Amino acid sequence: MSRVAVLGAGSWGTTFAKILADAGGSQVVLWARRAELAEEISTSHTNTSYLGQIRLAQTITATTSIAEAVSGSDVVVLAVPAQSLRSHLAEVRASLSEDAIVVSLIKGLERGTNHRMSEVIAAELDLHPRQIAVVSGPNLAMEIAREEPTASVVACQDHEVAERVAALCSSPYFRPYTNTDVAGVEIAGIVKNVIALAVGICDGQQLGDNSKASVITRGLAETTRLAAVLGGKLETLSGLAGLGDLVATCASPLSRNRSAGRLLGEGLTPEEVTAQLTQTAEGMKSGSAVLALGRSLGVEMPITEAVCAVLDGTLDVENIASLLLARNLKAEGT
Amino acid sequence: MSRVAVLGAGSWGTTFAKILADAGGSQVVLWARRAELAEEISTSHTNTSYLGQIRLAQTITATTSIAEAVSGSDVVVLAVPAQSLRSHLAEVRASLSEDAIVVSLIKGLERGTNHRMSEVIAAELDLHPRQIAVVSGPNLAMEIAREEPTASVVACQDHEVAERVAALCSSPYFRPYTNTDVAGVEIAGIVKNVIALAVGICDGQQLGDNSKASVITRGLAETTRLAAVLGGKLETLSGLAGLGDLVATCASPLSRNRSAGRLLGEGLTPEEVTAQLTQTAEGMKSGSAVLALGRSLGVEMPITEAVCAVLDGTLDVENIASLLLARNLKAEGT
Repeated sequence: MSRVAVLGAGSWGTTFAKILADAGGSQVVLWARRAELAEEISTSHTNTSYLGQIRLAQTITATTSIAEAVSGSDVVVLAVPAQSLRSHLAEVRASLSEDAIVVSLIKGLERGTNHRMSEVIAAELDLHPRQIAVVSGPNLAMEIAREEPTASVVACQDHEVAERVAALCSSPYFRPYTNTDVAGVEIAGIVKNVIALAVGICDGQQLGDNSKASVITRGLAETTRLAAVLGGKLETLSGLAGLGDLVATCASPLSRNRSAGRLLGEGLTPEEVTAQLTQTAEGMKSGSAVLALGRSLGVEMPITEAVCAVLDGTLDVENIASLLLARNLKAEGT
Repeated sequence: MSRVAVLGAGSWGTTFAKILADAGGSQVVLWARRAELAEEISTSHTNTSYLGQIRLAQTITATTSIAEAVSGSDVVVLAVPAQSLRSHLAEVRASLSEDAIVVSLIKGLERGTNHRMSEVIAAELDLHPRQIAVVSGPNLAMEIAREEPTASVVACQDHEVAERVAALCSSPYFRPYTNTDVAGVEIAGIVKNVIALAVGICDGQQLGDNSKASVITRGLAETTRLAAVLGGKLETLSGLAGLGDLVATCASPLSRNRSAGRLLGEGLTPEEVTAQLTQTAEGMKSGSAVLALGRSLGVEMPITEAVCAVLDGTLDVENIASLLLARNLKAEGT
C-alpha cells in the first residue's frame, strides 16, 4: 500500500484524490488550505464548493498541515495554483522522503522565471527528473468526479516511474497512458489555457464554430512550435495531452479559461473577469510568461500575442477576430 | 471574368456559389436537380430549403441542365453526393472545355472502388491532376452563408492552379489557403465524417467532453495514419482541412454526420436515422469504403471499425464507449 499525499483540494486535486482512492492501492491524504474544507472532506466525504454532491471514498483523510500530509508519503501530488507552487515547496521539502516521487497536476508557467512546474519542482526540492512526473490530458475534473470514462497521460523521463504512477491512478473510469516527454506534456497543458481564452473570446464575440476551429488549429500549431524548441515531441502534441486536452477544454462549458475568455470577449476587463469567477483562470496568469518564453526562443505565437494584448488592454476585443484569422498566410503552414 | 459552374444546390454548393459571386471575378451558374429550386434561386435569390432566408447575389443564375452550366465554363465546381458523382460526370464530360479546372467540394469515398473524388474525376473526365483541385476546411455551410469569418484550404498538385482557384473564392468572410497535398486534404475530409459519427454516438450515449475529446484525438490519429500511407502530409492533417474541419464538425450542432451519430447513439437503426434526417450523412455511406481502404493498406482504424460495426448492426451502441476508449494502449502512440 503506497501512501500518497495530494496537495490542493480544488476541483482537480480532490478529483485526483478520489481517483487514487477508487483505484485502490493507495492510502490518500488530501491537504486543504482551509480548515472547514479539510473537516468537510474528513467527516462528510464531500467537497461541495468544488464538486457539489459527489461522494468521496471514506478512506481519504484530509489535513491542513502540509508536513503531516507529506511525511512518510511515497508519492506527493501537487495541485496548487501555478504561481504559488514555489512557496508551497519550501514546506514540502522539509518533510519529503528522499526517494519520494513528486507528481504535478498543474498547468501553468511561473511568471518572472518562465519555468515549467517540473523545473520549479526540480530546483526547489533538489530532485532528479526521474522522481518527477506530470499528469495531463482531456481531464475536465467534474466529468471524472462523475466517473465518466476518461483517458489521460502520465509522463516521466523514467518510463518505469511513469508506469508506477499510472498504476496508482488506473481506475474503471480513468485510464492513464504513459509517455516520457515531460516538456511536451507540460507545454501542451500550459499553452492550452491561453488558447482556451482565445476561443472563449471568440465565443464572447459571437463568432461561429468555423472561426473557433481555426483558432484551435492555429493555436495547437503555435503550441507545437514552442514545445518542439524545448524538445517536446510532435506525437505528444497531437495526442491526448495536446490535442485531446485542448479540444475538451474548448468544447466544455465547464472550463474556467474558456469562461474567462467569454467574459473578456463580452467586453469585461480582466479585473472584472477575475472578480466574477470563483476559481483561477490560469491562462490569464501564465499568458504573459508563455509569450515571454516564446519570444526568448524566437517562436512566433500570434494567438498568444493577441490574448496577451487583450489582457494588457492594448487590443480591443472587437478587433481580435480579424487578428486571429488574418495572419498573412498564403500557403498553409508557411 | 471567369465563368464558373457549380453543380449541386445543396447547402454547401449554394454557399460556395455565393462565395464566388461575392468575391467578384466570376459569373456563377448554379445547377440544381429540381426545377422549382432552380427557379427559386434565379428569381427570389434564395434557397430556403437549405439556407433559410439567406440572400444570394442576384448575379447567380440557376439551371437544371448540366450541359448548360458546364458549357463555356472555365471552372466546374462539384458539390453533388459522393456516391452519385460518377454518374453525373458522364454528363459533365460531354460539355467540358478541354482546359477547364474541376474543383471538388465533396467529402466522400466511392463505395465499391474505394476511390477518392479526385480519382473518380481524373478517370471519368480523363483529366491531368493539375486540372483538379479540392476545397476543404472548417466550413460549416450555414455559418459561411451568414458571412461569419472562415478559413479554408484549396489544394491542387499544381500550386498555380490552387492559387487561381483561391483567388476566385477569396472574399471578406472566406479566406482560402493553398496546399499541394490533394490526397491529405481529401482523406481528412472523408474520414472526418466517420469520426463525427463516432462523436455523435458518444453524444447519444451521453458521454462527456473528456470522452469525446479522446475520440477526436484518436480519430485524427487514425486518419493521419491512413493519409500518410497514401502520401498525405502530417501538416495537412494537423491543419485547417484536418484538425480544423474535424473540430468544427464535432463542435457544431449543424453537422449532419454528428447529428446522425447522435441518433445512432440513442439507439435508432441506420434506416431510422436516414428517414429522420433530410440530408445525407455521408459518413454512413463512406464508412465501409474507408474501412475497406484502410484494411487493404494495412492501416489500423479502430474508431472507423467501431462505427462500421454499429452501422452493420453487429455492435450494440451501448458497448461502444469501452470499445472507443479501451484500445489496449500502454505507452501513448504505440
